Amino acid sequence: MNAGRITPAHAIQPPEAVRWSGDCAAIDIIDQTRLPEREERVLLRSAQDAEAAIRAMRVRGAPAIGIVAAMALVLEARRLEEQSSGDFTAGWEDAARRLAAARPTAINLSWAVERMRHALAGADPQRVEAVLRAEADAILAEDRAMCRRIGEHALLLLPAPVARVLTHCNAGALATGGIGTALAPVYLAAGAGRDVRVYASETRPLLQGSRLTAWELQRAGIPVTVVADSVGAVLMRECRVDLVIVGADRIAANGDTANKVGTYALAVLARHHGIPFYVAAPTSTVDPAMPDGTGIPIEYRDPDEVRRGFGTLTAPPLAAVFSPAFDITPAGLIDAIITDRGVFRPPFADLAALPVHGEE
Amino acid sequence: MNAGRITPAHAIQPPEAVRWSGDCAAIDIIDQTRLPEREERVLLRSAQDAEAAIRAMRVRGAPAIGIVAAMALVLEARRLEEQSSGDFTAGWEDAARRLAAARPTAINLSWAVERMRHALAGADPQRVEAVLRAEADAILAEDRAMCRRIGEHALLLLPAPVARVLTHCNAGALATGGIGTALAPVYLAAGAGRDVRVYASETRPLLQGSRLTAWELQRAGIPVTVVADSVGAVLMRECRVDLVIVGADRIAANGDTANKVGTYALAVLARHHGIPFYVAAPTSTVDPAMPDGTGIPIEYRDPDEVRRGFGTLTAPPLAAVFSPAFDITPAGLIDAIITDRGVFRPPFADLAALPVHGEE
Repeated sequence: MNAGRITPAHAIQPPEAVRWSGDCAAIDIIDQTRLPEREERVLLRSAQDAEAAIRAMRVRGAPAIGIVAAMALVLEARRLEEQSSGDFTAGWEDAARRLAAARPTAINLSWAVERMRHALAGADPQRVEAVLRAEADAILAEDRAMCRRIGEHALLLLPAPVARVLTHCNAGALATGGIGTALAPVYLAAGAGRDVRVYASETRPLLQGSRLTAWELQRAGIPVTVVADSVGAVLMRECRVDLVIVGADRIAANGDTANKVGTYALAVLARHHGIPFYVAAPTSTVDPAMPDGTGIPIEYRDPDEVRRGFGTLTAPPLAAVFSPAFDITPAGLIDAIITDRGVFRPPFADLAALPVHGEE
Repeated sequence: MNAGRITPAHAIQPPEAVRWSGDCAAIDIIDQTRLPEREERVLLRSAQDAEAAIRAMRVRGAPAIGIVAAMALVLEARRLEEQSSGDFTAGWEDAARRLAAARPTAINLSWAVERMRHALAGADPQRVEAVLRAEADAILAEDRAMCRRIGEHALLLLPAPVARVLTHCNAGALATGGIGTALAPVYLAAGAGRDVRVYASETRPLLQGSRLTAWELQRAGIPVTVVADSVGAVLMRECRVDLVIVGADRIAANGDTANKVGTYALAVLARHHGIPFYVAAPTSTVDPAMPDGTGIPIEYRDPDEVRRGFGTLTAPPLAAVFSPAFDITPAGLIDAIITDRGVFRPPFADLAALPVHGEE
């Protein structure tokens, strides 16, 4: 069960999932496929490296992969700088398309790529690399600031003196450039010396909850307890949690939310038990072009993630598997969507009025 | 996804989880910890072997462990046959107590041991071993017959021409002496040439759904698709399943049901989606001494089943874990309890009127 000790506020130090390498020649990420075995940083030296890392989920989390894609397009501009203008454009655009398509559900990926396209289109041809670098740095800095603002808004929804939070997958520092989305209020509460305890559901098949959320919170000294995905219902029934808070990969204009598979089940269960269910995400996760959740593309994962969990045969070798990576939680089950621009409540009418990405 | 092919009825052959060895000197079980890697039978030559196998879940499933405990008490009587009457009774009773305590939640274990005690108490001292052997064989034979009757009753609840069934954990042939409880109607439907398709939720942490249910159905040629536990909600929302059917480890007099953790979540989700939720179990699983589910003891599992899934570190090594093996589904969420004595419907008033175990 949760340890009772509260870490002193000054000790709270979330990991830095994405940054430039010291010489700015590469993207320096924590390889999330190695966690929790070891904290190992790897350098992505090209857009190709970055695309492969996103596909292999060495870096994951909707905001974080958007940042990596933007940074990768700086590296790609540098790689192509000796090319003719036509070859530059063709090569860079090819990389942009490939990065945007690396994972289909998260809107942040195409949003970040679109911002880089706009920056390139408006750039003085002599200053392309500097302009793209400034835009990527802005995306990273804005994400950090958005995480903090999400945390400040969400903090007001956490009960005191003790807050017992159930989260799913990882919407923490490892998923963003900053202190996370769903975990942002947890870091802020702990940093302010408040008593906050987290239950992390393990999140099959890739176990982002037990491998990543538990790791980053434990590393920051915040009490965390791992549960199998199906134990969330037991926690609710036994009144062990006060609220559920999760991140999002894409939010439709009506509030329907795509997030890691398992989110929808927790939303139904929270409603059944009268427990508030919150989504925390930057406004860049809202897709105003998507009227509701029915149109959000869902990525399906390799059956062997279920059949051969971690090198062992965990199902018959040829068993059929149905493995959506995400599910859609209808807006009606969401008590609030917490963004950097404030807390949106049902029926989420203001959500559709948010400025289109990059307009601000 | 599910293969479309229907196996010809004559080919349906569930595995035999528990039987006497050829010379009747040992209990011959399929070692379920080795599945699905290999189908390996092991011999349990003593009550001590049997207790260890039950604790290690080489044999599991409420009915199956009751049968193994009964058979083990035959072996124990044989081992002690040269002892004085006092030593025999002390030794045998010690084994009985240890077997009954090997797993606390399933009532069938103490039920089977109690039947063996009664048989011993009434036995001619010259014929103890034969009397105990006859009682253990009766328990096994009755379980086989009960599975079939459960299947016949449950078959009437399966839609036609296609039935799409979601089950959790393993309540199949591997969990019983016969064709299972929750899976009994599936075997009967397939055996009658009907189109029945099963979704098996994998059932963390020990994966009885993906390792065992998928294995035994695939072996019998019945279409089965494995899903992560949190995908059950998606199946319901996308109208991919017609009903949920699970087994039980103990059923209180009011219908509250203890079963593998994850069952309760599926019951809430089924109710939310308007999908029938059924429990299938022999009447020996009903505990008339337990007025409702609040008193049923819940077994907690080793945290390393979650932290070190299958030899890999799947959470930080010292992460706190909350791992109940079972949960309680309140009777109000159950549409029917299907037993060998017929189908019980809410408010399950007739359940409490069932004859006390062994009275029949």
